[in-house]
Amino acid sequence: MGKRKDKLTSNIGWSTSDTIRVRGLDLPNEILGHMNLGDVAFLQLTGRQATPEESKVFNAIVITLVEHGITPSAIAARMTYMGAPESLQAAVAAGLCGLGTVFVGSMEGASKMLYEALPQDKLGTGVDLDALAVETVAGFRARKAIVPGLGHPVHKPVDPRTPRLFEIAAENGKSGEYIALMQKIQTEAEARSGKMLPINATGAIGAICCEFGFPWKIVRGFGVMARAIGLVGHILEESENPISYDIWQRVEEEILETSGPGAR
Amino acid sequence: MGKRKDKLTSNIGWSTSDTIRVRGLDLPNEILGHMNLGDVAFLQLTGRQATPEESKVFNAIVITLVEHGITPSAIAARMTYMGAPESLQAAVAAGLCGLGTVFVGSMEGASKMLYEALPQDKLGTGVDLDALAVETVAGFRARKAIVPGLGHPVHKPVDPRTPRLFEIAAENGKSGEYIALMQKIQTEAEARSGKMLPINATGAIGAICCEFGFPWKIVRGFGVMARAIGLVGHILEESENPISYDIWQRVEEEILETSGPGAR
Amino acid sequence: MGKRKDKLTSNIGWSTSDTIRVRGLDLPNEILGHMNLGDVAFLQLTGRQATPEESKVFNAIVITLVEHGITPSAIAARMTYMGAPESLQAAVAAGLCGLGTVFVGSMEGASKMLYEALPQDKLGTGVDLDALAVETVAGFRARKAIVPGLGHPVHKPVDPRTPRLFEIAAENGKSGEYIALMQKIQTEAEARSGKMLPINATGAIGAICCEFGFPWKIVRGFGVMARAIGLVGHILEESENPISYDIWQRVEEEILETSGPGAR
Amino acid sequence: MGKRKDKLTSNIGWSTSDTIRVRGLDLPNEILGHMNLGDVAFLQLTGRQATPEESKVFNAIVITLVEHGITPSAIAARMTYMGAPESLQAAVAAGLCGLGTVFVGSMEGASKMLYEALPQDKLGTGVDLDALAVETVAGFRARKAIVPGLGHPVHKPVDPRTPRLFEIAAENGKSGEYIALMQKIQTEAEARSGKMLPINATGAIGAICCEFGFPWKIVRGFGVMARAIGLVGHILEESENPISYDIWQRVEEEILETSGPGAR
Repeated sequence: MGKRKDKLTSNIGWSTSDTIRVRGLDLPNEILGHMNLGDVAFLQLTGRQATPEESKVFNAIVITLVEHGITPSAIAARMTYMGAPESLQAAVAAGLCGLGTVFVGSMEGASKMLYEALPQDKLGTGVDLDALAVETVAGFRARKAIVPGLGHPVHKPVDPRTPRLFEIAAENGKSGEYIALMQKIQTEAEARSGKMLPINATGAIGAICCEFGFPWKIVRGFGVMARAIGLVGHILEESENPISYDIWQRVEEEILETSGPGAR
Repeated sequence: MGKRKDKLTSNIGWSTSDTIRVRGLDLPNEILGHMNLGDVAFLQLTGRQATPEESKVFNAIVITLVEHGITPSAIAARMTYMGAPESLQAAVAAGLCGLGTVFVGSMEGASKMLYEALPQDKLGTGVDLDALAVETVAGFRARKAIVPGLGHPVHKPVDPRTPRLFEIAAENGKSGEYIALMQKIQTEAEARSGKMLPINATGAIGAICCEFGFPWKIVRGFGVMARAIGLVGHILEESENPISYDIWQRVEEEILETSGPGAR
Repeated sequence: MGKRKDKLTSNIGWSTSDTIRVRGLDLPNEILGHMNLGDVAFLQLTGRQATPEESKVFNAIVITLVEHGITPSAIAARMTYMGAPESLQAAVAAGLCGLGTVFVGSMEGASKMLYEALPQDKLGTGVDLDALAVETVAGFRARKAIVPGLGHPVHKPVDPRTPRLFEIAAENGKSGEYIALMQKIQTEAEARSGKMLPINATGAIGAICCEFGFPWKIVRGFGVMARAIGLVGHILEESENPISYDIWQRVEEEILETSGPGAR
Repeated sequence: MGKRKDKLTSNIGWSTSDTIRVRGLDLPNEILGHMNLGDVAFLQLTGRQATPEESKVFNAIVITLVEHGITPSAIAARMTYMGAPESLQAAVAAGLCGLGTVFVGSMEGASKMLYEALPQDKLGTGVDLDALAVETVAGFRARKAIVPGLGHPVHKPVDPRTPRLFEIAAENGKSGEYIALMQKIQTEAEARSGKMLPINATGAIGAICCEFGFPWKIVRGFGVMARAIGLVGHILEESENPISYDIWQRVEEEILETSGPGAR
């Protein structure tokens, strides 16, 4: 909560009877037909147009987050749609509500870890990344905390999204010290723990977000916008091939069996 | 709610330890680096890849819906972020909850109206669109209902998004009988009412969605996914230049003045 | 959306440094310690204090709606809590989003049906309720619509909540023509359809809400406020005895089996 | 996320064709007509019936949280209702989403602080509360953190809810070492800071929740359930006397003035 202001301001956009501007660009004439949805997301968030290289990388990281199968978020959205099919927007909203610390937290956690280890004003000053990686992993181990962005229950020894995202970043000039540090942190964490700890997609994206210089607090927002797209797809499928009623009935019947009158 | 099924199914995607497929495509190798976010939205919803022409038009309609300034939806999201800055996802969710019949309703209303007037199986059969337009407008007038997709409080005599969207549709082979019918409905509605009733952006998008053949029930989903992107931008701005605290204080003080002890 | 006003007003409450008033009552001295939560809900909604009889009936109808087991709404809330345990409020919000036309719709539908059949200004004028019931059921049958508030998949031939709610209403002077009409509608609907169609809890509550004279549009709100209480209980249980992770894993594994690579 | 279980269980309730049980009680015969809404909330959360004294205190703390005027939460709910009047539940959900660390955080913060200073197993062992208060305040001051539950922008030198809540607690046997400690913390914090720091309602409720022994993580839930009731009241008023449209228009016009074309 801030101090009182004289005047409310916003720099996102404005419109008059015949003009609509978003982030300084004329929506009908400079955006529509010229930009793709990912580029408009970049524009909306940063206030400037992505270069062709930035467009390639930014689109890739957001796209990675669109669809992750029948997640808890998708189940929540489908359950909500069953009860309120007239409110598709509320079903998407319900699905988004669960994108908190457990599922998208590791993405912002990875960005935060990398920025704390290597503040932006130290980039290009020849910091010893190996030493940083050792120190960072030691810090997490001392706090008995999990290193964010490492490990995956299914995708091992390699999360197939990670090498591809790093390749796209490298081809487009977005592979620098943050990605290198993330990779060294992985090597160190695997050595210390003796476990397979692939850099997962959230770790890769967290590192690439640092290459862009995005504030770590907004990194979660990329997951939220991407998943909104994914959830609309799930709701469309639910409307054509509903599964939530069956999931509900199975759960209810099992609970009645384990915890109802017969269980007493 | 459906009948009980033997098995739950979903055709959106699946993953194994080394493979991730979305709508039949290999995510790392066939999607990342090859498609933009709008195309992935199209893939997620339709189950197939957009042609270059479809990509152009689909990106344009979703982009049009990203940012509409300080809307009630943006105010709700910003108010929510003020109270729960640790839950960016819940602020976006709160903003989406209001995308109902009043604001995005006209988009699905326009699609529904056009499909009801001209079912898809009548396309290309030489139906008299002028007669359909007269009949459609007469029907709405008889029910004293507003024709969806027409009129705008600010953008008149022309909503600047509409001619541009129709131009992009025409350049890419997506301008057919539905857009023609929408334009005839506008002409008829203006003639009958004597008012300026520009086809607004939601009317233009509703008509283009019919050209694609999208079910009218999912049209609202395009607004929801687009606005999720826009709202992340509003929340990022709110975190840097907060205005919700001031809006709140002004409202509370005025209410205290009009409706508090002094007012008695 | 309304017309522009000179001044914002609200009659719910206000506070100054040493006074807090809700609906005209002094919160610390006239409400706290004197009223129960149901009575405060009544006060908040109607602007006046419930009589002891109204308190009895109103508490009973809201209480009926608190807890309905592992509903889709409870599953959505639990799934959301799994992903964002730091945002209990967002988990409750997600659970509430699905309280739409399918689950609480029948409650407002019953009230609306009764008010339409018997407008409040006809009460006590000796309207023939038998004829109204016949006409109402015939109308629904002609539209092939389900009569709201009748029938239950589990609770038959009698929903055990209904006779008890009607008994409480009768003991407290709230059993009049609307409850009588609801009962006649049930008899007629059973006779016409040849099926067991008990008045379910939503039908009973819808009728009692008419006895109170509540606008039918707010009837859904009683379900929403009650379920918020119920959902906090579900989330507390989920935090101590989590089941959403298992539900998710089962669904995901089954989908992988039916719709994954092996299924191709 | 937990380990895989053999069976899903829940102890909240169950139903069969003729029986509905909530927390072991028969809903129609043991709850309806016998309990008030606050008591059912207590039952739902704790699994047992409140004593008459507990009922008095528990109802009072939840009631305190129902209505706080035109808060950001109420504004978000009203804005949402303007856009989706057909989805009252989504408007309530949007309003709840903002009940996070800023507004209800101090309530759970106060409970957490008190439990950390005085774990439940030290109650009645003659711990020196004065020393604990000094130590607790010193800890917060050393971390430059605000002591939760103290201070109020409007209600000073006394928050009028606090003495009343403490009085109700004392009259009903719920005033013990946690309330005493909270009061000593206030005295110490005022002495150290030289500022007026009244125990506010969230501090009073946080302390009383400790007297009940509620886990601090669920304390936020009392605010969420109470505010759901309050928000239904705001939405009902908004439907009769809308103010959100005017709030929106004023904000939009001011932003156009400060940040639109004329501002360039």
